[in-house]
Amino acid sequence: MTAAGGITTASDVADLDALGADAQVGMALYTGTLTLGAAIAAPLTKPLPGEVWPTVVCDEAGHTLGLVWSTRESLAHAVAARRGIYWSRSRQEIWEKGATSGNTQQLLRVDLDCDRDALRFTVRQSGAGFCHLNRRSCWPSGFDLADLEVTLADRMARPIAGSGTAKLLADPALLAAKLREEADELGQARASEDVVRETADVLYMAVVALQRGGGTLADVRAELARRHGAVTRRPMVSKA
Amino acid sequence: MTAAGGITTASDVADLDALGADAQVGMALYTGTLTLGAAIAAPLTKPLPGEVWPTVVCDEAGHTLGLVWSTRESLAHAVAARRGIYWSRSRQEIWEKGATSGNTQQLLRVDLDCDRDALRFTVRQSGAGFCHLNRRSCWPSGFDLADLEVTLADRMARPIAGSGTAKLLADPALLAAKLREEADELGQARASEDVVRETADVLYMAVVALQRGGGTLADVRAELARRHGAVTRRPMVSKA
Repeated sequence: MTAAGGITTASDVADLDALGADAQVGMALYTGTLTLGAAIAAPLTKPLPGEVWPTVVCDEAGHTLGLVWSTRESLAHAVAARRGIYWSRSRQEIWEKGATSGNTQQLLRVDLDCDRDALRFTVRQSGAGFCHLNRRSCWPSGFDLADLEVTLADRMARPIAGSGTAKLLADPALLAAKLREEADELGQARASEDVVRETADVLYMAVVALQRGGGTLADVRAELARRHGAVTRRPMVSKA
Repeated sequence: MTAAGGITTASDVADLDALGADAQVGMALYTGTLTLGAAIAAPLTKPLPGEVWPTVVCDEAGHTLGLVWSTRESLAHAVAARRGIYWSRSRQEIWEKGATSGNTQQLLRVDLDCDRDALRFTVRQSGAGFCHLNRRSCWPSGFDLADLEVTLADRMARPIAGSGTAKLLADPALLAAKLREEADELGQARASEDVVRETADVLYMAVVALQRGGGTLADVRAELARRHGAVTRRPMVSKA
């Protein structure tokens, strides 16, 4: 349920949230009575000493990049600037990720968790990564399609002469032939280890094609999400 | 670098970690001089008041499910039992996720973050999900290939008569034809919005084939990770 009209204070938003309702804030934002950051922060409860909240930072695929801290004030700055701005527990001050390194973050969304005592920032990270060790994540990270996408973006920007990937990216006919070939091999595979290997081949070729065509995995996830509810209601016939 | 031999105390492990070295603990574990939980917890620093550390819980794909708390004691219990066992800040006691609901967690790995003041638990969640609201995650979760995999596993177990997915799962020739058809369409696509749509089609068909063949996306990620370093060194020719 969304409540709208006459919502002018953070405590209005918090009261509605406690009832399980979303607050639609309009005029109060335009007139400056309430900031978007204060509205988002309104339902936060059970802070740690120092009025801070743990903040899990994730990439667009939902993979955790690290754990940092927010205050109402740092959150207000982050939301206003649409950047990864946090609270440094050690320095006891607001810090913007990348302000010195250049590895800034575009803030895509902020979520509160189910019991309103932790935050999740979803960011688009620029540069080497979130971690101060120039890694993607502050935890050891497993491999994901997103890693393949990052590698392929790099290969697009800086082709390695003679590499298979460079050939695929440069030759649409070769890429189309490999796509068909790998799809056929997956279609023929029966043993589960073969199916896994051939699926990996198909996914690789698909991400190469996606990269070459200027799309992103985030776009593909959005497209799949859009279809998801309807997936089983599509007629399934082969044109062949 | 890994240091081995004569490592018998948690402070040995912490000292080595501070030097950037891994500690290989053997005999001390077998003889009970040191527990695995204490060894893992050894490098932890900068606790919150009450000697607690924020703990990000993730699924096997690295997606964050929620934010909880650990103490050295709860961590020792979790590691010993290989289950999702944490510290309740509100009740000031150790709690096992799912002890009452049955939605327990198999603990797959524990990682400390780069500066050793936060934990990440990677778990296999059973039952409805991690969140006490019976959702997969304590944050609103976006769509991922993993969601597609879950849906398709359900369709395998409980086919919906006449649905497109049921036809694909039951008819290898149809699936092979659709795989080729979608791969060809991706190979022909040029505009980025077409590329995105066709990539979604190929990924969908690939995950259907994977599911049908008894493989999992975790298997495929592992296969891609194995190849990842070698990706650009493969010869790239088409058999056609």
